[in-house]
Amino acid sequence: MANHFCLLLIFTFFTLLFPSNGSSLSSSKLLPRFPRYTSRNRGRIQQFRGDRNEYRYETKFFSQQLDHFSFADLPKFPQRYLINSDYWLGASALGPIFLYCGNEGDIEWFATNSGFIWDIAPKFGALLVFPEVRSCLFCMPYGSMEEAYKNATTLSYLTTEQALADFAVFVTDLKRNLSAEACPVVLFGGSYGGMLAAWMRLKYPHIAIGALASSAPILQFEDIVPPETFYDIASNDFKRESSSCFNTIKDSWDAIIAEGQKENGLLQLTKTFHFCRVLNSTDDLSDWLDSAYSYLAMVDYPYPADFMMPLPGHPIREVCRKIDGAHSDASILDRIFAGISVYYNYTGNVDCFKLDDDPHGLDGWNWQACTEMVMPMSSNQEKSMFPAYDFNYSSYKEECWNTFRVNPRPKWVTTEFGGHDIETTLKLFGSNIIFSNGMLDPWSGGSVLKNLSNTIVALVTKEGAHHLDLRPSTPEDPKWLVDQREAEIQLIQGWIETYRLEKEAKVSLLKRSW
Amino acid sequence: MANHFCLLLIFTFFTLLFPSNGSSLSSSKLLPRFPRYTSRNRGRIQQFRGDRNEYRYETKFFSQQLDHFSFADLPKFPQRYLINSDYWLGASALGPIFLYCGNEGDIEWFATNSGFIWDIAPKFGALLVFPEVRSCLFCMPYGSMEEAYKNATTLSYLTTEQALADFAVFVTDLKRNLSAEACPVVLFGGSYGGMLAAWMRLKYPHIAIGALASSAPILQFEDIVPPETFYDIASNDFKRESSSCFNTIKDSWDAIIAEGQKENGLLQLTKTFHFCRVLNSTDDLSDWLDSAYSYLAMVDYPYPADFMMPLPGHPIREVCRKIDGAHSDASILDRIFAGISVYYNYTGNVDCFKLDDDPHGLDGWNWQACTEMVMPMSSNQEKSMFPAYDFNYSSYKEECWNTFRVNPRPKWVTTEFGGHDIETTLKLFGSNIIFSNGMLDPWSGGSVLKNLSNTIVALVTKEGAHHLDLRPSTPEDPKWLVDQREAEIQLIQGWIETYRLEKEAKVSLLKRSW
Repeated sequence: MANHFCLLLIFTFFTLLFPSNGSSLSSSKLLPRFPRYTSRNRGRIQQFRGDRNEYRYETKFFSQQLDHFSFADLPKFPQRYLINSDYWLGASALGPIFLYCGNEGDIEWFATNSGFIWDIAPKFGALLVFPEVRSCLFCMPYGSMEEAYKNATTLSYLTTEQALADFAVFVTDLKRNLSAEACPVVLFGGSYGGMLAAWMRLKYPHIAIGALASSAPILQFEDIVPPETFYDIASNDFKRESSSCFNTIKDSWDAIIAEGQKENGLLQLTKTFHFCRVLNSTDDLSDWLDSAYSYLAMVDYPYPADFMMPLPGHPIREVCRKIDGAHSDASILDRIFAGISVYYNYTGNVDCFKLDDDPHGLDGWNWQACTEMVMPMSSNQEKSMFPAYDFNYSSYKEECWNTFRVNPRPKWVTTEFGGHDIETTLKLFGSNIIFSNGMLDPWSGGSVLKNLSNTIVALVTKEGAHHLDLRPSTPEDPKWLVDQREAEIQLIQGWIETYRLEKEAKVSLLKRSW
Repeated sequence: MANHFCLLLIFTFFTLLFPSNGSSLSSSKLLPRFPRYTSRNRGRIQQFRGDRNEYRYETKFFSQQLDHFSFADLPKFPQRYLINSDYWLGASALGPIFLYCGNEGDIEWFATNSGFIWDIAPKFGALLVFPEVRSCLFCMPYGSMEEAYKNATTLSYLTTEQALADFAVFVTDLKRNLSAEACPVVLFGGSYGGMLAAWMRLKYPHIAIGALASSAPILQFEDIVPPETFYDIASNDFKRESSSCFNTIKDSWDAIIAEGQKENGLLQLTKTFHFCRVLNSTDDLSDWLDSAYSYLAMVDYPYPADFMMPLPGHPIREVCRKIDGAHSDASILDRIFAGISVYYNYTGNVDCFKLDDDPHGLDGWNWQACTEMVMPMSSNQEKSMFPAYDFNYSSYKEECWNTFRVNPRPKWVTTEFGGHDIETTLKLFGSNIIFSNGMLDPWSGGSVLKNLSNTIVALVTKEGAHHLDLRPSTPEDPKWLVDQREAEIQLIQGWIETYRLEKEAKVSLLKRSW
């Protein structure tokens, strides 16, 4: 039985159901990968904030409904949000409110990695708010995220619809308190946050006038896009740098298994890859590599950055340079280690590697992947360099049950938000959404990549990666990135101007009728 | 402690909170009135169905999520729906699906009172489905509606958002089972069902191509329309028939109080009004009259009908004829009794009147009014013939707490669905909604009464009443009603044709690209 030490733990029902030693999701292939706040990147936030003194904000809390859609007598919870009003034009000047739709993790991490919004705030005279999605907020009464995620009662209310309603209630209240009811709200978001921004615009068109949805794979559900999309794109990112690099990685999985089957093979692999503890299976190693290649494809930025990990510019190029450039008698596994060290140890400070960044498989995203966010992922042996894998919903469901005692609802997202024939839906019923994507990003395949109307616009860059446009401008920005951001600024400016003109027209109409 | 006899009763938490003898809402003025299935009209369904043999349907059940927006381990419940496929063109011909958004009560009652849909089904070759809103569905595991409404656990999931999600999940599954994914869905609804239809179209534009929202007061929240609107319109309905009738009713409230204060006054009032049991207070009588006048204004149809009660055509005219035409020495209360008998006893079969149609104040609508559907209602002494009453949110809240142990969320509906500046919201982000209203209907004041765009259309009739257009055609239909229905048919036809043309264009585009 779990301890009853927390406010939110009111239904003993769930704690009875939930095993105290929940097994972890055994195959990471089951779960889609989004950048998330983990033990790997934890601790670097402070450092990052120190580097960028311009990111000043107050941290506040808003008393939020745990369940917007029922009247069960649940406690409220404190939703954390960051706010900066240094540049705001104020209510009387209809100063815009830029709302970043927080992702599945620590809002400070996402806020300090979304420099674009900070960069453009002075130009727009915008108030900046970064409300956190409940995935991390639940940490608070538990003292730690790990404790929070172990609790199925809390987790059951961690859904996309609740998160959108949080934003709506939060910003409506904020505007009321600031007497800023007439101020336009513009939504921003990247990755899962980008999905939230796009869906928020569709479901709450009265709350915000437009959304910049960066790298938002809203079509990565059911059979809307082929399940191989993600791994095919990630593989291509390596192939375009070097066919031999691609082939080395492709061949490495068998080499790992062969090595593992030898006497003391796991011990040898542990040594080759400098792990802090001995591998339990070759799967652990494969998952660790698979994860790095996937994230590398996402953050294959054209200049040095520190998002998932501190990395050089064009990190895949660097990885492949190490793999291809190893000494001619280096083994395939030595090459792989040399390459992967670019990702896991670019600073050179790591003595040995820890395998798990989330040992219990219980972080918020895993829960969401086991409930609403069922994104089928397969790896096709022909085109992909990743281990072959066919998405199998029965296994997926079973893993989710074993881990969380929950049954996914794989068709719910498309029922709630549309998906099949989303083009028609967006064209006819949506407006003022920018879907920005970089084609190196493996998630781009599940996003909207073409203009659907004058106001549903796709901004695609061939050389961009996962929500690169949301990052701060740097002197190294290539022209295509500068252009992409400029286009976004123009569109947002257009939304705000149109909104203000309509407001003014209404006011003068009212005045005339007095 | 409540008994644990039912599947749905899983959280003991609520049963502890909920008093076994919940007090009823003491003043009916606190609650908005919608036509609903009550002991007054219960039992007439069979008779009505017998009269209209053309309403043939199968009754089926769909296994539905109790909570769509959380993954709490709740049981599913059987959602009742009525279905008729006699006229359906079938999936291959893209035969439309007409979905009636069930109201806050027995779906058979609403289905058999929505003859318009039955009348037009053959013309459109439509499949008819009438899914029930959960308000009554909960009856089932409890054996009776009264038992169901006593249970706060179940009630907590009786919300508009859950009902809309029910419709979305239900019709998506139905279409899949019929291989009718490509068939267009058109929504219909009247009163609360009309609100559901309009909101469904806004929140789930990918699910249905258009909505006929009849008498749907989606603006009757917060301060969007004056709180006196409802009673002012109802009062005007009487005044337009007869000023003296209006004045007699207006004066009667003081007369009732004066009579009640006399010795044996309540006994005398009981006799005058032929009640089966002695009145507890004059408030009981006032509420009973107030209720009848309100419903009379809603169902002031131009021909005899049997919706709330069996009534003659122009029932308010008849009521006023009795009030004005009483013997010259008839007392004010005798006049009132003569008038009100038109409503409560048009058939002449009633020996004595029962005061309460919902003795516990616990029906589903009262719950909804105490949670999301907070519609401020005041009665202004100047313009209204009803007892003066100022809406007071504190009292309202207190009553809700005393009755259901629940706190209303009075600002939630406008946050979730919009409301303030709804014109802009609908104009920019909605399409294919007909708001039909009859100006005699007291709810018309909270509805959309003007065209907002080419596809958000208001069809208003000066002489119509509460969702009159949804009733079956009759030989007595006035021309303006025939015209209103014809306009609706034309608009719906247009939606379907546009949809089919787009589908065909897509198919031929696909064929060309093969």
